[in-house]
Amino acid sequence: MDEKKQWDGLEALAAIVGSQHVLTGEQAQASLTDWRDRYSGAARAVVRPGSTQEVAALVRWCSTHGVPIVAQGGNTGLCGGATPDASGTAIVLSLARMNAVRGIDLDNDTMVVEAGCILQQVQQAAHDAGRLFPLSLAAEGSCTIGGNLATNAGGTQVLRYGNARELTLGLEVVTAQGEVWHGLRGLRKDNTGYSLRDLFIGSEGSLGIITAATLKLFPQPVARCTALLGLKSIDDAVAVLTLARRGLAAALTGFELIAGNCLEGVVACYPEQRIPFEGESAALPWYALLELSDSESEAHARERFEAVLGEGLEAGLVVDAVIAESMAQSHALWHLRESIPLAERAFGKGIKHDVSIPVSRMAEFVHVTNKALQAHFPGITHVIFGHLGDGNLHYNVATGDRWTVEQLLESQDAIYALVHDSVHRFGGSISAEHGVGQLKRDLLPRYKDGVELDLMRRIKQALDPQGIMNPGKVI
Amino acid sequence: MDEKKQWDGLEALAAIVGSQHVLTGEQAQASLTDWRDRYSGAARAVVRPGSTQEVAALVRWCSTHGVPIVAQGGNTGLCGGATPDASGTAIVLSLARMNAVRGIDLDNDTMVVEAGCILQQVQQAAHDAGRLFPLSLAAEGSCTIGGNLATNAGGTQVLRYGNARELTLGLEVVTAQGEVWHGLRGLRKDNTGYSLRDLFIGSEGSLGIITAATLKLFPQPVARCTALLGLKSIDDAVAVLTLARRGLAAALTGFELIAGNCLEGVVACYPEQRIPFEGESAALPWYALLELSDSESEAHARERFEAVLGEGLEAGLVVDAVIAESMAQSHALWHLRESIPLAERAFGKGIKHDVSIPVSRMAEFVHVTNKALQAHFPGITHVIFGHLGDGNLHYNVATGDRWTVEQLLESQDAIYALVHDSVHRFGGSISAEHGVGQLKRDLLPRYKDGVELDLMRRIKQALDPQGIMNPGKVI
Repeated sequence: MDEKKQWDGLEALAAIVGSQHVLTGEQAQASLTDWRDRYSGAARAVVRPGSTQEVAALVRWCSTHGVPIVAQGGNTGLCGGATPDASGTAIVLSLARMNAVRGIDLDNDTMVVEAGCILQQVQQAAHDAGRLFPLSLAAEGSCTIGGNLATNAGGTQVLRYGNARELTLGLEVVTAQGEVWHGLRGLRKDNTGYSLRDLFIGSEGSLGIITAATLKLFPQPVARCTALLGLKSIDDAVAVLTLARRGLAAALTGFELIAGNCLEGVVACYPEQRIPFEGESAALPWYALLELSDSESEAHARERFEAVLGEGLEAGLVVDAVIAESMAQSHALWHLRESIPLAERAFGKGIKHDVSIPVSRMAEFVHVTNKALQAHFPGITHVIFGHLGDGNLHYNVATGDRWTVEQLLESQDAIYALVHDSVHRFGGSISAEHGVGQLKRDLLPRYKDGVELDLMRRIKQALDPQGIMNPGKVI
Repeated sequence: MDEKKQWDGLEALAAIVGSQHVLTGEQAQASLTDWRDRYSGAARAVVRPGSTQEVAALVRWCSTHGVPIVAQGGNTGLCGGATPDASGTAIVLSLARMNAVRGIDLDNDTMVVEAGCILQQVQQAAHDAGRLFPLSLAAEGSCTIGGNLATNAGGTQVLRYGNARELTLGLEVVTAQGEVWHGLRGLRKDNTGYSLRDLFIGSEGSLGIITAATLKLFPQPVARCTALLGLKSIDDAVAVLTLARRGLAAALTGFELIAGNCLEGVVACYPEQRIPFEGESAALPWYALLELSDSESEAHARERFEAVLGEGLEAGLVVDAVIAESMAQSHALWHLRESIPLAERAFGKGIKHDVSIPVSRMAEFVHVTNKALQAHFPGITHVIFGHLGDGNLHYNVATGDRWTVEQLLESQDAIYALVHDSVHRFGGSISAEHGVGQLKRDLLPRYKDGVELDLMRRIKQALDPQGIMNPGKVI
């Protein structure tokens, strides 16, 4: 479009949201690049509506004028789903100003929040009301619930509470036609037609824009208990998971797998942290971080945990175990786990694979894939950790001491292909919890059933025939 | 179509599945009427494919020849969703022969079953493998898992484990074009595109035919504890629910609400059953049946239960309580609950409303709706029970002693309208767990957001442009 037309557009957008909420030039820059600085794009403007009605009016205007829309929350995505393309024809529609908690219904155990609420703010509002909202992930201090829903976010408590999709009862959505679907139902059962809720969740802004959601709340646990287990193999980790699920049932709220070299890297990078084991136990190939949430008491939590760990030790599945004695120790154990993605100084530049595998095939997957990687890319460093309870591994590789960044970048596509091909052979998914965005869109035809892709295209075409909702993402 | 053409069709169908699996005339009758004898239709034939490939071939043939398809499982639906219309142009595609358990993966806690598996057979296969498949409902001895998925069935353990949708990880589906979507993933996390799984679940055969599913398994509880509580009001029932959720967390697997007259009707109808209270406690307006599933021991289960009940008694919320002392007593309590829908002799002919309401508004809804019903239909009998924990009431009315069947049938539509209008005003759903079928299809435009219906129509048109999948149902 020529300058004149663009100018017209800015005026029209300003008429909807107010000119102070139409950002261009320098002001818009932060929204045009993702937080990791991997994706950059251009846009006519960053527009910040303050209400659902404004979102709808913006979409109607864009629909009339054929202007693409990239919805954006906290801009913390890992797949470039919220970054516009380079054409500069789109607007970025930021939900940041729509950050009200609209209400909490204690007897119904639900809360209604707007898409721009920061996840931590949602957790806190639930906490203040004496409830738990269990979605929890590394970016919770800056990601928004709208982004969490757009990508069906996972995190550390999926094992017990499910993904973002399973935590959501209702949605308010602005369609690609600029109409508002008022679907903020607080119902645990509603079988009156197709589950549009589940369709919009995880669609990464490519079918419509989620403006608010009704979320499930849970009772707060009375006590939490955290333990780090030293293990000889992933097979043993899977056996301990089965044992813990049987012994702790729904009280098992976390089961994270961590490769030994990840812990070593963290303490090398952050000397104030330490591996809470001595001697051989501090140099095992695998560790598991378990969390139990108890509805009775600290003492009961510990007793149950000890029973399961005792069983694991007796069966020779657990080499060594430490149970946190205090909140501080529990935080220290989680801090070890959460520091892995940050310990780039120890591991060097890396490539992330956010994959899932049936738990029963996890050990074999890691064994086979590690071996293939070393055969093709000798000396590359493995950085493997993840949510074993959900079958979700962050199967990353990094330069370590033996590779240069240039070598890594040169081999990047080949490494992706090797790992993803292996994931596919093991019946897994090449995106477990981060979504597709622009990073993995072109990989889908290789790994997804052609019939499934065709169904997705039919749905995209049906709901967004103009193709203005986040074009170039997902499909 | 003329006779000649029909004959051609039967031959073509027989060429796909074998002539012994193409039923017509008398043989087809049982599939043309629902089990409650409320809906009757006609069909060219009832066809019983034995494999996914045969289902696909049938759909392709039907697509080419414009023949509608009504998929059918156990024919136990309550909304006529599996009964063909009167035109006689459709075929009924029975999944009954596809009843294999394809596999169980213990470490992954999943099982793959074909659509025609009877629900009880699925539960048993899980049990035999040392696991729990928690979907449980009255028709479990004859309904199929395919039907459960098509209607997103609920039942008595939704509070803890969710509906059929939440128990499913993957699907195999034959599309309206007769292609097979191989989506039998056993993954707890998979964010590679639109959630087709959740779209097909609950679509009642109107978008495609589910031929198999990957289901979630859970650890078997070590102990179960059942109690019947006597209550003064629904408000108190809601307060006890909140208290029980806090005290028992995920161990609370059932919370059924039962009106006092329902229990009276059951024991009047089945004198071998009894209300386990004496005196005033046997004549309270409301009762609640609670179930706790414990992963530790009988003693622990009972201790936890008693703590919660003690709290309820002390707060004056619970008037009286009986905890089952044995499996037999527990079964007797559940038997009371399960006998309500069968005690027609006590209540007279009835009209069912399968509705959901936010739990927080349940008491007011019942109060207001009861009053309005009595004002408009004086003397009609209320038969109210349901899954309070899920906000799901079977808010039924019956002739009792004071109405005739003729009066009831004459007022049927007006009663539906009064109850459903009230449900709508309270933010509820007119179909909580039974689906839409043909019973409620024409009610949707009155109660559903127009934008939502439009989105549903777009999806139907996109996936089944010929309109051959279960026409006249859902939408």
